[in-house]
Amino acid sequence: MIYFDNAATSKYKPDVVYDAFMHYVREIGTSPGRGSYSLGVQASRMLYQSRKKVNAFFGNPSKTNVVFTKNSTEAINLFIKGFLKKGDHVLISCYEHNAVLRPIHSLYENGLITYTVLPEQVLESPESELEKYITPSTRLAAITLASNLTGQLVYSAAFGDECKKRNLTVFVDASQGGGKKLAHMERDNIDYLAFTGHKDLYALPGVGGLCSKAPLTFPPLIQGGTGIHGEHYTNPEIYPEAYESGTLNMPAIWSLKTSIEFLEENLEKISQKEQLLTQRIISGLSSLPNVDLYKPTKRRVSTVCFNVKGVSSSDVVSYLDKNGICVRGGIHCAILAHETLGTVKTGAIRVSLNYMNTEQEVDYFLDVLREMK
Amino acid sequence: MIYFDNAATSKYKPDVVYDAFMHYVREIGTSPGRGSYSLGVQASRMLYQSRKKVNAFFGNPSKTNVVFTKNSTEAINLFIKGFLKKGDHVLISCYEHNAVLRPIHSLYENGLITYTVLPEQVLESPESELEKYITPSTRLAAITLASNLTGQLVYSAAFGDECKKRNLTVFVDASQGGGKKLAHMERDNIDYLAFTGHKDLYALPGVGGLCSKAPLTFPPLIQGGTGIHGEHYTNPEIYPEAYESGTLNMPAIWSLKTSIEFLEENLEKISQKEQLLTQRIISGLSSLPNVDLYKPTKRRVSTVCFNVKGVSSSDVVSYLDKNGICVRGGIHCAILAHETLGTVKTGAIRVSLNYMNTEQEVDYFLDVLREMK
Repeated sequence: MIYFDNAATSKYKPDVVYDAFMHYVREIGTSPGRGSYSLGVQASRMLYQSRKKVNAFFGNPSKTNVVFTKNSTEAINLFIKGFLKKGDHVLISCYEHNAVLRPIHSLYENGLITYTVLPEQVLESPESELEKYITPSTRLAAITLASNLTGQLVYSAAFGDECKKRNLTVFVDASQGGGKKLAHMERDNIDYLAFTGHKDLYALPGVGGLCSKAPLTFPPLIQGGTGIHGEHYTNPEIYPEAYESGTLNMPAIWSLKTSIEFLEENLEKISQKEQLLTQRIISGLSSLPNVDLYKPTKRRVSTVCFNVKGVSSSDVVSYLDKNGICVRGGIHCAILAHETLGTVKTGAIRVSLNYMNTEQEVDYFLDVLREMK
Repeated sequence: MIYFDNAATSKYKPDVVYDAFMHYVREIGTSPGRGSYSLGVQASRMLYQSRKKVNAFFGNPSKTNVVFTKNSTEAINLFIKGFLKKGDHVLISCYEHNAVLRPIHSLYENGLITYTVLPEQVLESPESELEKYITPSTRLAAITLASNLTGQLVYSAAFGDECKKRNLTVFVDASQGGGKKLAHMERDNIDYLAFTGHKDLYALPGVGGLCSKAPLTFPPLIQGGTGIHGEHYTNPEIYPEAYESGTLNMPAIWSLKTSIEFLEENLEKISQKEQLLTQRIISGLSSLPNVDLYKPTKRRVSTVCFNVKGVSSSDVVSYLDKNGICVRGGIHCAILAHETLGTVKTGAIRVSLNYMNTEQEVDYFLDVLREMK
């Protein structure tokens, strides 16, 4: 079986990640911040080490400012619902995932905020274009790091610079591309960054988070037991505990800490391999006359998007599946991106590779597609 | 090391649970509802089987109505923030965990709802007492199944009956006691039930949920990608997908399905062992003259709560830790329960056992405590 759906989740993890997860489960197995016995204190130490690792990886000048969540969707909701205030105007890109669009559109429908979807030319030429979309109420730009549909990089340091000149807060959804070290909070003017562990960060499922330069001060999304200050009737004003009510998924957090270490050691090799595979698949798809390939731009992660002329994307997915190849079709939880590409009615086929894939797999995929009747 | 903090999390799981988790991770590894290729469909089937297993275990007349969350705190927040409307009056028990108290108190502070904390006699004699606390606005009773501090059962079928007579909606927080098959939604008149996997249900961390007799219709807590109906700008009105935005922690869900099967097969043995250990520890603690034992009632789970006269709970925890015993002291994320017991200032020591503990461990603990200077 050939697994080409790494943008949904990386099915295979480095062995050290499985080992770290099971080490936590078998040897520690307790919850941080709950018991003051030695093994509880050790859990808290491991949580602290994990916070430092994540923030260093994302270039956060604050070494420990991360709220761990279950996935990036929770982190995005925590941020959007907590940060935005009545009357705010928000800029989002024409490639945002529904995880960003939907909470923002709901606030808009409830009459709380307004928002504008930035077209592609603003993302490409923010210096000349961004100004046109800013109103006196504009407070936030929420931009995806990379499109989950086309793989192109959407956020750029240049865009961040223009936001900073205008005192806008910058939020980046790093669900795609988070593991490529493409987003650096300090260098790229990112105030808040959401990530998920189970995609290109190679952690086991069940952990994501929200990194921020400053501690959060807005209301938490979820209230409950915080381990400390249990005597308050509401969540105490302490960071990050007030934002992590309930038991944390500590084995997954520890697997994330370990997977980031793995990435740090192997980033160059991973990047080279993924670039090679991506160029090969783009080149192959480009040579097929019946294929519409979307946005084969250079600044990208290893996800590509196409359609076969006259064939529905679900039929292509089904045909590839019969030939042992897993790819995703239809609408990819990113309606704005489909509107941008003009693929709302047809859907699209997404192939998302990672370094564990091989040139042979890519060639086999291209052969199978070429032979499609 | 003796682990007596099972009410925080069950450190040790049955081997079949670790195996099920790793089976999912290694052999499946995909996300349900995302890819239509065979392995994606298989993931969806395993999710469906897990929904059925959870609902059967909790006696839900609806076979598949469960929203999977990261833990019970998220499930409780989803319910409380979604279900309650402006002007509602809520009844909660004097033993509620902060996971219930804090979201409710926040709604109260925001001027949206009012609530009353029911004293113990209402829980014990709902037939004669409940009526006194009901107003024309009372819409919900939110009651914990068992106290996380004292281990006593708080919710009862008799209480549920009285609620039903008055058309109140009943919500039960089964974070404690959920794995003992003590709550049966149909039999006990429970409309909504929140649970967490990692405590006495013996799943790996990262899964909880909200079971309901009817599909949810209120707004979700978290919005984002739902796998299906990706074309909508807001979460589509579909259940349960609209309430499970983002990638589910499917390996943990599968570990929960397996741990419930383990419980179903071994419930009688587990129950007998836990009762034996609990009686032994209650009997031992009762015989110590310097120990204040709280609520050693019969209707209980295997958690007991006490203080040593004249010694702070943190000193006792520390002393026990030096002797290789893990218990929790202080305030246990349940300020109402401490107010009920009169232990707000002192905190309290909680010993929470499960079937993997032994009589020898209990006896050693009692010996160590007896010798405390």
